Amino acid sequence: MRAARMTPPQTQTTQTIQETDVTTGATVWLTGLPSAGKTTIAHELAGRLRAEGHRVEVLDGDEIREFLSAGLGFSREDRHTNVQRIGFVAELLARNGVLALVPVIAPYQDSREAVRKRHQANGTAYVEIHVATPVEVCSERDVKGLYAKQAAGELKGLTGVDDPYEAPESPDLRIESQNQTVQESAASVYALLSERGLA
Amino acid sequence: MRAARMTPPQTQTTQTIQETDVTTGATVWLTGLPSAGKTTIAHELAGRLRAEGHRVEVLDGDEIREFLSAGLGFSREDRHTNVQRIGFVAELLARNGVLALVPVIAPYQDSREAVRKRHQANGTAYVEIHVATPVEVCSERDVKGLYAKQAAGELKGLTGVDDPYEAPESPDLRIESQNQTVQESAASVYALLSERGLA
Repeated sequence: MRAARMTPPQTQTTQTIQETDVTTGATVWLTGLPSAGKTTIAHELAGRLRAEGHRVEVLDGDEIREFLSAGLGFSREDRHTNVQRIGFVAELLARNGVLALVPVIAPYQDSREAVRKRHQANGTAYVEIHVATPVEVCSERDVKGLYAKQAAGELKGLTGVDDPYEAPESPDLRIESQNQTVQESAASVYALLSERGLA
Repeated sequence: MRAARMTPPQTQTTQTIQETDVTTGATVWLTGLPSAGKTTIAHELAGRLRAEGHRVEVLDGDEIREFLSAGLGFSREDRHTNVQRIGFVAELLARNGVLALVPVIAPYQDSREAVRKRHQANGTAYVEIHVATPVEVCSERDVKGLYAKQAAGELKGLTGVDDPYEAPESPDLRIESQNQTVQESAASVYALLSERGLA
């Protein structure tokens, strides 16, 4: 009998609050250069949001590229297509109450704009975060060794070095990751989501 | 003040039940020939599930192909890739509490099996429905005019005619759409989901 599962008013109030929180979705796109700290910040933020009961997915660039965009390269056109596909999946998740965190370079302004418009057209929340770590700091970190490879002539078309990166002119938030801890960066995104009723 | 939003015990019990229902996700793959009735049944079922408060997405074959699989054709390999991509997206949705209804031909046994295994590996519910309308009935319906085009020599590689369709040997449910209404077909899928605690 379901009636046996009734709980005291205090508990119910908490559940009501949680239910509201849990069902609010949004896409949070973290754009920036390779090694800017996008993925690290996304995972830090994801942990905090999950702990609070949110449904969260981190659509990691390399992972999702392998699945959704096998066969695509790194030309302007292919990068655009890849970003649109990830944006499509993020929107599907976000409109179903998931916080979709997308740490993906997305170097072109028009690609990002198309993703934003797709969200707007569906009434789905979209937040753009520019992880604005300077290229000098990124190339020093060089998590995947891409900057070293480019410098050694083993790789061409590295975003921010010999391939374009069009920095967002008016992102919802700009993070200077070189001046703060990962926790502080994640906290600033969290504060923005909270302010907008998304966390 | 949140406390002001407390409601009487009876209402709260209802909310608790709803919350449980709403957060159970699954992928429901409807496989079958072109014009078998997959999409029609999916939309009929979606309406009923949405009315009950479920989060539902219908991942329509043509629509999602355009977005996720532009550039892919209809070779065995490309069909396989397309099915894996849709399966990937469906699983992402399903593990986040969405009922992902997938009316997509998926002609090859091994492609469908790979999708099922991906769901199993993630502990996500997966249900395979074979919409087993005979090819004679499908070609009579010919919703998109594909059978006529194939007969006129304007199209090659039509599943079930001059391209393979490997019927599931042991689907979770087999629907003989030619012997019942769309509502009855949808109701039989609904009953299965209900039996498994997914609706």
